Amino acid sequence: MTKLTIVKIGGNVIENEKDLSQFLSQFSEVKGPKILVHGGGKSATAFAKQLGLSPTLIDGRRITDKPNLDIAIMTYAGLLNKNIVAGLQQNKCNAIGLTGADANTIESVKRPVKTIDYGYVGDVKKVNSENITALISAGFTPVFCALTHDTKGQLLNTNADTIASEIAIAMSRGFQVELLYCFELQGVLTDVKNPDSVITALNTNTYADFVEQGVISDGMLPKLENCFRALHKGVSHIKIGNTNMISSESVICTNIQL
Amino acid sequence: MTKLTIVKIGGNVIENEKDLSQFLSQFSEVKGPKILVHGGGKSATAFAKQLGLSPTLIDGRRITDKPNLDIAIMTYAGLLNKNIVAGLQQNKCNAIGLTGADANTIESVKRPVKTIDYGYVGDVKKVNSENITALISAGFTPVFCALTHDTKGQLLNTNADTIASEIAIAMSRGFQVELLYCFELQGVLTDVKNPDSVITALNTNTYADFVEQGVISDGMLPKLENCFRALHKGVSHIKIGNTNMISSESVICTNIQL
Repeated sequence: MTKLTIVKIGGNVIENEKDLSQFLSQFSEVKGPKILVHGGGKSATAFAKQLGLSPTLIDGRRITDKPNLDIAIMTYAGLLNKNIVAGLQQNKCNAIGLTGADANTIESVKRPVKTIDYGYVGDVKKVNSENITALISAGFTPVFCALTHDTKGQLLNTNADTIASEIAIAMSRGFQVELLYCFELQGVLTDVKNPDSVITALNTNTYADFVEQGVISDGMLPKLENCFRALHKGVSHIKIGNTNMISSESVICTNIQL
Repeated sequence: MTKLTIVKIGGNVIENEKDLSQFLSQFSEVKGPKILVHGGGKSATAFAKQLGLSPTLIDGRRITDKPNLDIAIMTYAGLLNKNIVAGLQQNKCNAIGLTGADANTIESVKRPVKTIDYGYVGDVKKVNSENITALISAGFTPVFCALTHDTKGQLLNTNADTIASEIAIAMSRGFQVELLYCFELQGVLTDVKNPDSVITALNTNTYADFVEQGVISDGMLPKLENCFRALHKGVSHIKIGNTNMISSESVICTNIQL
C-alpha cells in the first residue's frame, strides 16, 4: 500500500510567523501523498476579544455559541487555513484548504446535550475517505481546519486532534498511514520538568507499564488513548514530537506502535 | 463538448438569508458540471466597521490595506464561502470552496502602482483550468470567492465579476461555457426607471446601436465590454438577470451572444 503522511499542527506553530514558515517548508518536502490538519484556538480567542466577545468556558471546555462559531469559521477556515494554503503553494505544494463541509469530507453530529450544552460542536460521524482520496489522486494536498458539517447546512466546531485521528483511521483502508502529532515538546516525557526525558517508544505493553507507574498521567492520557485507538483501527504508526521530526527520521520523538 | 454552467452571484443575494437559501436550492438543481463564484463586499464593509476599521476608498474604489485584506479573507473565504458550501451540501450538491490559492486555481499579480496604490489587490494572470477540471471530473462543484494568490505566499483581493469571466474564458478550452451574472434586476434596461424595460438580446451589432443611442451607459458599459471580451475569447453564451433565470429558460433576462 502507498504510504500516506498525516501531520497535525497546533496553535503554537501556526501563531508564530517564523515557526510556521519553517514548518510549511518542511511539510512541503514530505515525499508522497500527505494531509495537513491544523488547530488554531488561540487566534479565535484573541479575535473574539477584539470584537468584545468573551469565550464561554465550562470545566475548561469552550462553549461554541453562534458568535463564537462565526469567529471560528472566519479564523480557522478563513485567515489561518488560507494563509497556510498560500504558504504551501509558495513552497510548490499544491495545497487545497478544506472544512469537513468541502467535498463532504467529514460529517459530524452536534454533540448531544447531557449536563453541558457545548453549542455548535460536532462529534465526527463519518469521514468520506473516497472524496479525500479523489483529491489526493488529482495531485492535491488537503489542508483541514477544525470544522465539520452535519450535512443539513450547519458547520460545527470539531477538535483538530480528533479530526486528524479520524481521517487517519478512515484513510487506512487504502493507505499505509503515518500520523504525526506536532506540539511544542520533543515527545511524551517521563518528567514534565525535564524536556530531555522523552519516551522514544511506546507500545500497548510499555504504555500500560508507564500508566501503572504513574509516569504518564493527566492530559497525556486521553491523547495517548486516542492514539492507541487509531492504531487498533488500522493506522500504522504514530509519532508525537516537535515539527523537526517531519524532516528527519533521526530527530528524537515518541514513536507509538501496537 | 460538455456544457459547463458558471454562475456569479453578488452581495445582494448572499446577504439575505431567504434569497440565499432559495438560490442555493436553484443552483443545486442545475444539470451537469457547474461552478459558483460569489462576491461579498458589503459583509466585509460591515465587519470592518464592527472592528472599528473604516474602509479606504479612492475614486469610489476600495483600497485593500493589510487589515482590510485580513477581513476579506475572513469574510469571503471564511464565513460566506463556507456557509454557501454547507448550504449546497444540504442540497446534495457536492461543493468545494476555493480561493485562487486553493489547488493553485487562479494566479494573479499585485496591481502595479500608477497613480493609485490599491494595496493587496490582484489582477488575474492565469487560471489553471486543468486543476479546476480535475475537481469537476472528481465530481465536485467548485465555489470561488473573490480572492486569488501571487504564488509567492500572498493572497490578493480580486473582483468577483472578473474572476467569473476569467474562469469562463479558461474553461472554454474544454467545455461549452454558459456564464450567468445574477444581480437584483431582470437584465440590462433601456430605462433605468422602468424595471420591465429589459433588453432580452444583445449581440455586437445591437450593443453598438444601443451605445450609440445612449441607451446603455455608465456602469453597464464596463460590465458589457467584459462580457463581449469573454465571448470573443470562447465563452458560448452570457446571461445577465436575476437568480430565477437559473431555474427556467423562460424567465426574462438579457441574453448576450456574439
